[in-house]
Amino acid sequence: MIQHPGNVFVVSAPSGAGKSTLTQRLVRSVPDLIFSISFTTRKPRPGEVEGRDYFFIDDERFDAMVREGGFVEWVEVYGHRYGTGRDWLNGVLATGLDVLLDIETTGAMNLRKVIPDARLIFILPPSAASLEQRLRSRGKDSDEQIRIRMHHARHELEQYQAYDYLVMNDDLELAYHQFESIVYATRASLGRMSPAARRVLEGF
Amino acid sequence: MIQHPGNVFVVSAPSGAGKSTLTQRLVRSVPDLIFSISFTTRKPRPGEVEGRDYFFIDDERFDAMVREGGFVEWVEVYGHRYGTGRDWLNGVLATGLDVLLDIETTGAMNLRKVIPDARLIFILPPSAASLEQRLRSRGKDSDEQIRIRMHHARHELEQYQAYDYLVMNDDLELAYHQFESIVYATRASLGRMSPAARRVLEGF
Repeated sequence: MIQHPGNVFVVSAPSGAGKSTLTQRLVRSVPDLIFSISFTTRKPRPGEVEGRDYFFIDDERFDAMVREGGFVEWVEVYGHRYGTGRDWLNGVLATGLDVLLDIETTGAMNLRKVIPDARLIFILPPSAASLEQRLRSRGKDSDEQIRIRMHHARHELEQYQAYDYLVMNDDLELAYHQFESIVYATRASLGRMSPAARRVLEGF
Repeated sequence: MIQHPGNVFVVSAPSGAGKSTLTQRLVRSVPDLIFSISFTTRKPRPGEVEGRDYFFIDDERFDAMVREGGFVEWVEVYGHRYGTGRDWLNGVLATGLDVLLDIETTGAMNLRKVIPDARLIFILPPSAASLEQRLRSRGKDSDEQIRIRMHHARHELEQYQAYDYLVMNDDLELAYHQFESIVYATRASLGRMSPAARRVLEGF
């Protein structure tokens, strides 16, 4: 179990559901919220920066971290491994700031085991057809890759009941507003605000 | 138990904590949210309108409604009785819209018994001193009335642990943002969004 003074948010979504747009805007707009940086064995894509987008490590180092219990959760996706570093997460949580972790459904389930009060948020595409349309319009994937992504998306969607919140990304503004609201509402939750309430009460 | 397709929110606060300002703004700003109208035995104050601010009824009628089980909850405060009408509430909830109920802590506990998934929100003053200051600056109450209100406020604050959310009204803008966020976050909660998620999943 990981103790933490700040809130932990996890966001998952099938590829093409708009998760990157939503999380990037959230982290820019909401104060005192840190975006998680994962470790990965995949190679950097053009524009990706070490220590900002990912910590890029090789298979040997990843294996070693797995053996040492260095990951809170890790998964393999499309032949590459991704993991949330335990020391990294503990370091960020010790600051008292809130943290947003972007992880796959399997990783999210594993994370909940060590941080039971993490708030799990799933970004829903409005429909299978619209998801496929978005994947095609990005022009990044072959037909075969899109077929695999759609298959994977279905598998991820099947886990929706494990999440606390489902944000439907039909209208981007509304979706963003809901996404941000989850962070602010969590900051006003009883568990978070009890110490402040006790202090007020003591003054009466 | 009352079945309902919409969300039920309850807001409580000691007098002077800024609840009216926050709730009025919320109901003006958030679509598909109805503000509850209570029944009361107290007389209308200048500017109050029957059927908008309250349903004003006499003691005899209130007694009859109590006997007939016509209230979801009712309480007596400062010699007057206030209650949430069961038929009224069922009627509003049947529309599928969300409802915001403004009720005392005792009433809120009673309401939770019939609507267990109601979200209970407590507005916290930043301190006892600031609450007393606000009550004095309103110029509506005598010293003795303020003493009674402060005593009552302490009693209400002692119930804070029964609430889901505590909104500290120190900075009004931040408090309003948190208050509104609770509504939008609840609309994205798993229970609320499950039918939509199932529909999306069926398309895959």
